[in-house]
Amino acid sequence: MTRRLLLTFGIFAISACASAPEANAPQDIAALGAIRDGYVKAFNAADANAIGALYTSDAIAMPGHNATLTGQAAIVAYNQGLFDHMTARIEITPDETRTMGNFGFDRGRYKLTMTPKAGGPAVSDEGRYIVMLEKGANGSWKVTRDIDNSSVAMPAPAPPPPAPAKGKPKPKGKGKGK
Amino acid sequence: MTRRLLLTFGIFAISACASAPEANAPQDIAALGAIRDGYVKAFNAADANAIGALYTSDAIAMPGHNATLTGQAAIVAYNQGLFDHMTARIEITPDETRTMGNFGFDRGRYKLTMTPKAGGPAVSDEGRYIVMLEKGANGSWKVTRDIDNSSVAMPAPAPPPPAPAKGKPKPKGKGKGK
Repeated sequence: MTRRLLLTFGIFAISACASAPEANAPQDIAALGAIRDGYVKAFNAADANAIGALYTSDAIAMPGHNATLTGQAAIVAYNQGLFDHMTARIEITPDETRTMGNFGFDRGRYKLTMTPKAGGPAVSDEGRYIVMLEKGANGSWKVTRDIDNSSVAMPAPAPPPPAPAKGKPKPKGKGKGK
Repeated sequence: MTRRLLLTFGIFAISACASAPEANAPQDIAALGAIRDGYVKAFNAADANAIGALYTSDAIAMPGHNATLTGQAAIVAYNQGLFDHMTARIEITPDETRTMGNFGFDRGRYKLTMTPKAGGPAVSDEGRYIVMLEKGANGSWKVTRDIDNSSVAMPAPAPPPPAPAKGKPKPKGKGKGK
């Protein structure tokens, strides 16, 4: 091997390495945090377009108890529909934020309160989420996938109609009855 | 720079590159598919321990409408509790499987049917999941995080309790009683 060849090879090798994904670079973790903050701010301002702007055009969102939303426009429409009917407020607590190269994810917990604009009691919920993000060619991060679920037990199905009341005696004794 | 130095540097650069994460290597995608298949087989055999063996010891599972499960033992116990009370059957359809170095994820849809062993009607559900996996030092993949949610609309809340049946005295005093 000539010196020139070695040098060329060395430079090639360095170039190849320069493209190796970097994990958890502080600027990437900060970017994911800014997107999370942007989501909370947009959601609490009932700004569906600002939420949509955080997603890639072909993002896939999987909100609990709803059909899968494919594409930014569907995500905006879903959130707009929510905001049309509800005054909603969300809090998010991140538990894990990681990046590897151009891919990253954020995992954590949410607390949500929704009050129907037409009146009626507020509904509270809390649960977990995983949001996946990608860094585009321009260096900016966007959400590509998201999923969340409630950690609250499912409401019991509506009970069968009660048997005709007949002064049912209360069970005595142990009182374990359940 | 001497030739020796260049050579040393070149080798160092190659070594550094050798550790650059490889994306979607066929053997990694196949390994994730085998874990998915293993999960379906274990679940449909009601084998909680076999499910647990697919997870890392410190995995975090977030089943819908349940508390977060931290650690393999908690995941086994949760599944065992399910299998104790239900005859359950799951089908999984993957939509996206990616790996990047030692990290990977699988995203898709599930269909679930659960029949109470104590009798009563079967309950069906379908939804989406994201499972995250890591490749350990020994080269084998394990699940580290998972979350799923239903795409079926929430059941309507139970109607308010009927007015107290005649004869049953209403608790007095507190009023708000809870």
